[in-house]
Amino acid sequence: MRILISGFGTVGQGLAEVLLLRRGFFMERYGEEASIVCVMDSSTYASDPSGLRPEELLDRKRSTGKVGAEGYRDPLKVMDSVDYDLLVEVSPTDIKTGGAGLVNIRHALGKGKDVITVNKGPLALRFCELVSLAKENGCKFRFEGSVGGAMPIINLCRESLVGENITSIRGILNGTCNFILSKMDNGQPFEQALKEAQQMGYAETDPTNDIEGYDSACKVVILANSVFGKGVAFSDVKITGISSITSEAISLAASNNMVIRLIGEVSEDRLEVAPRLVPRGHPLSITGTLNAAQVVTDLAGPITISGRGAGRVETASAILSDLISIMDDRKKR
Amino acid sequence: MRILISGFGTVGQGLAEVLLLRRGFFMERYGEEASIVCVMDSSTYASDPSGLRPEELLDRKRSTGKVGAEGYRDPLKVMDSVDYDLLVEVSPTDIKTGGAGLVNIRHALGKGKDVITVNKGPLALRFCELVSLAKENGCKFRFEGSVGGAMPIINLCRESLVGENITSIRGILNGTCNFILSKMDNGQPFEQALKEAQQMGYAETDPTNDIEGYDSACKVVILANSVFGKGVAFSDVKITGISSITSEAISLAASNNMVIRLIGEVSEDRLEVAPRLVPRGHPLSITGTLNAAQVVTDLAGPITISGRGAGRVETASAILSDLISIMDDRKKR
Repeated sequence: MRILISGFGTVGQGLAEVLLLRRGFFMERYGEEASIVCVMDSSTYASDPSGLRPEELLDRKRSTGKVGAEGYRDPLKVMDSVDYDLLVEVSPTDIKTGGAGLVNIRHALGKGKDVITVNKGPLALRFCELVSLAKENGCKFRFEGSVGGAMPIINLCRESLVGENITSIRGILNGTCNFILSKMDNGQPFEQALKEAQQMGYAETDPTNDIEGYDSACKVVILANSVFGKGVAFSDVKITGISSITSEAISLAASNNMVIRLIGEVSEDRLEVAPRLVPRGHPLSITGTLNAAQVVTDLAGPITISGRGAGRVETASAILSDLISIMDDRKKR
Repeated sequence: MRILISGFGTVGQGLAEVLLLRRGFFMERYGEEASIVCVMDSSTYASDPSGLRPEELLDRKRSTGKVGAEGYRDPLKVMDSVDYDLLVEVSPTDIKTGGAGLVNIRHALGKGKDVITVNKGPLALRFCELVSLAKENGCKFRFEGSVGGAMPIINLCRESLVGENITSIRGILNGTCNFILSKMDNGQPFEQALKEAQQMGYAETDPTNDIEGYDSACKVVILANSVFGKGVAFSDVKITGISSITSEAISLAASNNMVIRLIGEVSEDRLEVAPRLVPRGHPLSITGTLNAAQVVTDLAGPITISGRGAGRVETASAILSDLISIMDDRKKR
């Protein structure tokens, strides 16, 4: 399996670490390596048809800030110069235009390559187009890490729950908001909780994308399209963030044995991100930066899964699970 | 796919309902039916090589208390008289000897038949023997519903988390105990909470198996063997139940923002069922009859899944997921 990685930030580097850690696993399970034949960051690339060494890529990125010695202008020319089987697209997300990620994914699928991505922009904006393109070209297209990081919600729905009729998914899809709301449960006002989230590195300097619910809304779109086949886009989601939640509201909830959580919902008649009251002891009443999603099905009833919503190795672990699925499918062919 | 069902109590009947509901699903996915060719209850059986009608089986059981018109003495003779591909063994659990379930499973595997069971007795007592027997005879042997009912913990570990190194599983594996402990959180004393569990039909007249932790211990054994390959038996589990938990202990926990939950643990150095303190807001602090299990992995970190631990259709839904896995595998061969 020859892998081209586009994007070598946190997640790309995490993936290189994971592939290094799991070298033995791939040899044992498939009798072949999962080998990185090319990596592009925003301005440079490295490639080697016989496989790049992950530890060297990581060292070079750390010491020089760049993954390769060679610069490039057109990523598509770099991609076309390499023999690869799978694109892992983990470049920075652009939720307005889809950015370079959208262009790269389209290009790879058009050439019949399998694609794994965690890039929410292309998925939230062009889901149906990309899935159709994958189908037309006989490619696998997977994106477990795009929703909830290490929390395997998409594969749970597709695999373990494939015999169920799923009627709704409601979830905590943004760990930063959940961290802030958990701090507010303990009596901190919103502004102070946000500041702490920024100090911990959970929230960005401009926290709008998280706290106004836009990030959660992207994930709602991905779930609506991938699990429910809805064919919706970002603009279809009704969005309310958490910035106007007061300490008084949190206290009132607590006095009724409830907490307030930012919940993304996909159901028959709702596509929404909004703060909701959740009873203490409910599987969605969890605290901290965890993500969680409750899938309601006709036979099994409610099934809830939770896990770390972000993190270098955690998100890479979701890519690993997609990679294993793709390699399993190839082995069976 | 020709199915022989042994046991036609709650779960067996739930499965008949589910197969009726999913007739279209099987035809569409596999181009064949999942057809019941024989059902045995404790004293009678019905069989038809061209397939029995689930609705008739359910009607007859409801109106006469028996599934078939014909009695039998030796279940193995009934099994041998039928052409079938898969045994679904859902007869009553015997955690002392394995009971009829153990005999039936051994017999079917020995004849090269695939087996699905939710029967904890045979699994807790003879796991390694049964898995070896399945392997020798090239059979599939699955038992998702034996741990946590509708909560897909085993398939989660085997499928979505196959690339992870799992270091521990800790979980709420008995819904009756969790119901009682949740009632105690609200100020009820143990005896009263137990009585309410009995009135609701969650606890049996003799509640020993649940409240002393024996049922949870069976599930610990199944997880230890199936997920960790440990080769342990029921007697290896250190067991403490919930019957000696006082209201004072619950109050003390609450004043530290904690709850007490009965936790089954499988880890490197522990095989244990015992009451534990769990912080409020932790994924294992859930209330009610739900089951939950937290899997700790090296890459993804902690992943928690929860769902209904029991119920007619809920447990049957776990059998459905095993059936789909087996039929998917056959399709790919």
